[in-house]
Amino acid sequence: MATFERHVFVCTNQRDDGNPRGSCNADGKAELHKLLNQAMGAAGLKTTVRVNKAGCLDQCEHGPTMVVYPEAVWYGGVGAEDIAEIVQSHLVEGRPVERLRLREACINTANCEHKPRPAV
Amino acid sequence: MATFERHVFVCTNQRDDGNPRGSCNADGKAELHKLLNQAMGAAGLKTTVRVNKAGCLDQCEHGPTMVVYPEAVWYGGVGAEDIAEIVQSHLVEGRPVERLRLREACINTANCEHKPRPAV
Repeated sequence: MATFERHVFVCTNQRDDGNPRGSCNADGKAELHKLLNQAMGAAGLKTTVRVNKAGCLDQCEHGPTMVVYPEAVWYGGVGAEDIAEIVQSHLVEGRPVERLRLREACINTANCEHKPRPAV
Repeated sequence: MATFERHVFVCTNQRDDGNPRGSCNADGKAELHKLLNQAMGAAGLKTTVRVNKAGCLDQCEHGPTMVVYPEAVWYGGVGAEDIAEIVQSHLVEGRPVERLRLREACINTANCEHKPRPAV
């Protein structure tokens, strides 16, 4: 692979309030991207990991989502409180945070039990 | 890896005219993303490949850029005329388009000979 050891894409797609698929970045502030980027830098990973904003990753029912390549580990329902663990466990130590991972059966399928998102 | 066979990130970052690092999406229309998405769909890859917009991929001197995961193949200087070849050769047949690849020595390094971008 190329000279990034890892490349993280954080969904910063913003939809209108009330959209049934939800929004990974409801307030438009891309806070998760910012926090992850800061934490990653503080952990000394600036030269080996890139944290990127991404348009819709299309796993909206599980948002906020992000994906880590090249290992293609998907995370869902990520909150600000999860960032430190993702950085330390996954990006520093190479151990994905299992409790936040999307199930294979939920990724890129129309048959995921979470689609369409139930009305709240 | 997860259920996408490939995930392509197209830089749609737009900078002001005259920025010395250039802009992968100077007119803000994200035309490359649109064309790639259309061509990929026409090639029957909609369920196995995702084409995503991305924020700045930070290889700006080589723009417009895109990166294909999980293989981490980077392309630079991509134009509308290259899209059909990227889809057929790389995404359908699995053979990266060598003439468009960024050199390893140019990716994620401050020492790339192309930085800073020469004045034009």
